[in-house]
This record gives sequence, structure tokens and C-alpha cells, in this order.
Amino acid sequence: MITGPGLLFVVSGPSGAGKDTLVDALLARLPRLRYSISATTRAPRAGEEEGKHYFFLSRDAFERRLAAGELLEWREYNGNLYGTPRDYIERTIAQGYDLIMKPEVNGALAVKAAYADAVLIFLAPDRFPILRERLTARRTETTEQIARRLEIAEEEMKFVRSFDYIVVNAQGRPQEAIGDLEAILRAERCRIHRYTEETIENIRRP
Amino acid sequence: MITGPGLLFVVSGPSGAGKDTLVDALLARLPRLRYSISATTRAPRAGEEEGKHYFFLSRDAFERRLAAGELLEWREYNGNLYGTPRDYIERTIAQGYDLIMKPEVNGALAVKAAYADAVLIFLAPDRFPILRERLTARRTETTEQIARRLEIAEEEMKFVRSFDYIVVNAQGRPQEAIGDLEAILRAERCRIHRYTEETIENIRRP
Repeated sequence: MITGPGLLFVVSGPSGAGKDTLVDALLARLPRLRYSISATTRAPRAGEEEGKHYFFLSRDAFERRLAAGELLEWREYNGNLYGTPRDYIERTIAQGYDLIMKPEVNGALAVKAAYADAVLIFLAPDRFPILRERLTARRTETTEQIARRLEIAEEEMKFVRSFDYIVVNAQGRPQEAIGDLEAILRAERCRIHRYTEETIENIRRP
Repeated sequence: MITGPGLLFVVSGPSGAGKDTLVDALLARLPRLRYSISATTRAPRAGEEEGKHYFFLSRDAFERRLAAGELLEWREYNGNLYGTPRDYIERTIAQGYDLIMKPEVNGALAVKAAYADAVLIFLAPDRFPILRERLTARRTETTEQIARRLEIAEEEMKFVRSFDYIVVNAQGRPQEAIGDLEAILRAERCRIHRYTEETIENIRRP
């Protein structure tokens, strides 16, 4: 029986490693796992709900929260700000849910720096040439954009030792990577530092 | 795909926590997992084979190996010596097999001291009164012997923070404990310090 607070899992790694597919698969399988909701200054699109898809903030409000240290990590994309609100993370975890997010590598490192209990998982392809194949197959980016992504991937690999785990998403065997991720999520709950003195005392109680 | 050297898993905890049943279940499910073979000065019984059930040693040979630091842990039981040979552990792990053993708590701590890569798992009941029930149900020991085991269990719980994981074997739900153990065995292989620089370099290779 799983009880107690949830855990924060951060899945990161180079573009083309398969983060989206694998995180979606985990969310579909694990009822206790929720996707971490970001705050953004972007305007809501049709059908997007406050507190479900995003927390929508004015630029002013976002910047105030940033300055107050209330965002675990943030980034700018297409002129809009995105970030991870600490209060939402802490509230959801206190309710007993596990959270998962998939920031870029520098975002993952920022989360760990701000929230030491986070579990960082680096998702890697079995070989770098796979990244090029996957990015090319998407047909959404130019050759130059793909070359740039591969340069970034090379750079990101330098930070792999700051992560807690590596999961290799081998070409054609996504079920193995999903199995590894599920095992990590389950095993982390059994790690000794997750047990409070109170839980241990409860076991001993006559 | 799992490659590279195996890992050494040490499952310990109080008598009655369910080590034997759970370790047998794991061995039946995981083809890559082997039970660690002990060295002993006890004479072979009918059907026992050298290097399969035990490594049979004369007392002299056992004591020489002990003095030479070739045993990870040892204990005396019924006038015979038992111990875990380091060379066997290292050879089996190098062949890519995972090993599991179930020493007493002080043996588990000795293994960790001698072999820092070992993964220590403390198997606990959900409540201590369960231990008394299980030990009584065995009908193999007197009330005094059971009382002594419970005292030892109380003592052993003091060392729980030296372990890497706690798995709670809740009454009536052994499948959950087996699932936790399987997850730990799988997740440990993904931990960052299990990856050599060479493995990481192989991922990057163009």
C-alpha cells in the first residue's frame, strides 16, 4: 500500500530521445502520477483551462513570482514565459500524488537545485545517430535546425552525471524504457531517505 | 537490453519478515538473478554439490581465507562456519549475473563495508506484532526462543538507516513486496553511478 507524500520526477534529455511518448505512456499507466502544470504568460488557446492545462499569468505577475523565488525553473519561448510554480508542486505532492515534468536539461538542473528531493532521469537514445533519424522523420524542422538540436544534445550530455538515473530508449524497444521508468518511480519510494522516523516507529510499535 | 556486470543485492531484516519466500519468488521470476553460494565448514549432506549448494571447505582453509580478507562476511552456526567468498561474488557479477543473498542484519552491514557497490534492502513487516504471529505459526521454536528473536528484531531495526531501501512485506500482500523488490533490482541498474564513461561515450558516438 502506497501512502505518504508523492515524489517529483523530472525526465529530461535531448530532443528526439522520446520524452513525450514515454511520459504519456507512464501517465496512462500510473493513476497516482500527474503531469506537472506550468505557469505561462501566453494567452489561453480555445479549450485550455486555467489550472488544468496551464496557470495563466500576466507578465507582471509571472515576473513577481520569479523574483520571489516561487518558480522552480523558467524559460522564454516564442516571446512568452513559462515556469514551474513551487506552491503547486508542493501542494500536489502533499496530497500524495507523484508529479512528472519534462523540461530541457538546464531546466532539470534548476529544478534539482531548487528542490533537492526531485528525482532526475536522463532519457538517452542508444546511439546519437538515432536522434538525427527521429528528428528528420518528424519533418517539422530544417536541416539547419536539426543540426543545431544535435549540437545542443552533445552539450546536454555533458550534464548527464548531475542526473540520478539514465534510461536508454533503444530504437524499437520503447517498452523496455517504460519498464525502466516505472521501476524507478516505484523503487524511489522504497529508498531509505523517503521513510520518516514516524513511519519506522509505526513498524516497531507493539 | 541489459548488458554489463551484474549487481549484488543483500536482503536482510528480522526473522519472520518473509525473506525466504520473497527471495525464492524473485529467483523464480528473474532469469538473470542467482542466489549467492556460501562457503561452509559443514560436511556435505546427501545430494549437496560443491559449487552448487555450498563451497565446502576444511576449517583450516576457511580460516585462512577469512584471515586473507577473502570472505565478505561470515558467521558461526551450530559449530560450523559459513561465509561469503569475495572471489565467487566478483566472478559471477563480472559474468553479468545479479546475485542475491539474505544474511542477518550484521552480515548485511559487513557486506556493505567490504563491498560498497552492494545494494542493501531491509525487509520489514508492516507491524512488529506480525513477526510474533509468523514465528508462532512456524511451530519450530519455543516461546522463549521467539521472545529472543523479537528482542533481536528490535535491535536490528536500529540499523535500518544503514540500508539503501526498506521494503515492507505487509501481511496478506506479498505481491506488493515482490513488486517493490523487482522494481529496486531493475531501477538500480539505471542509477547514474552504474554507467561507465565508456557506456556514455558509446551513446554519443556518431
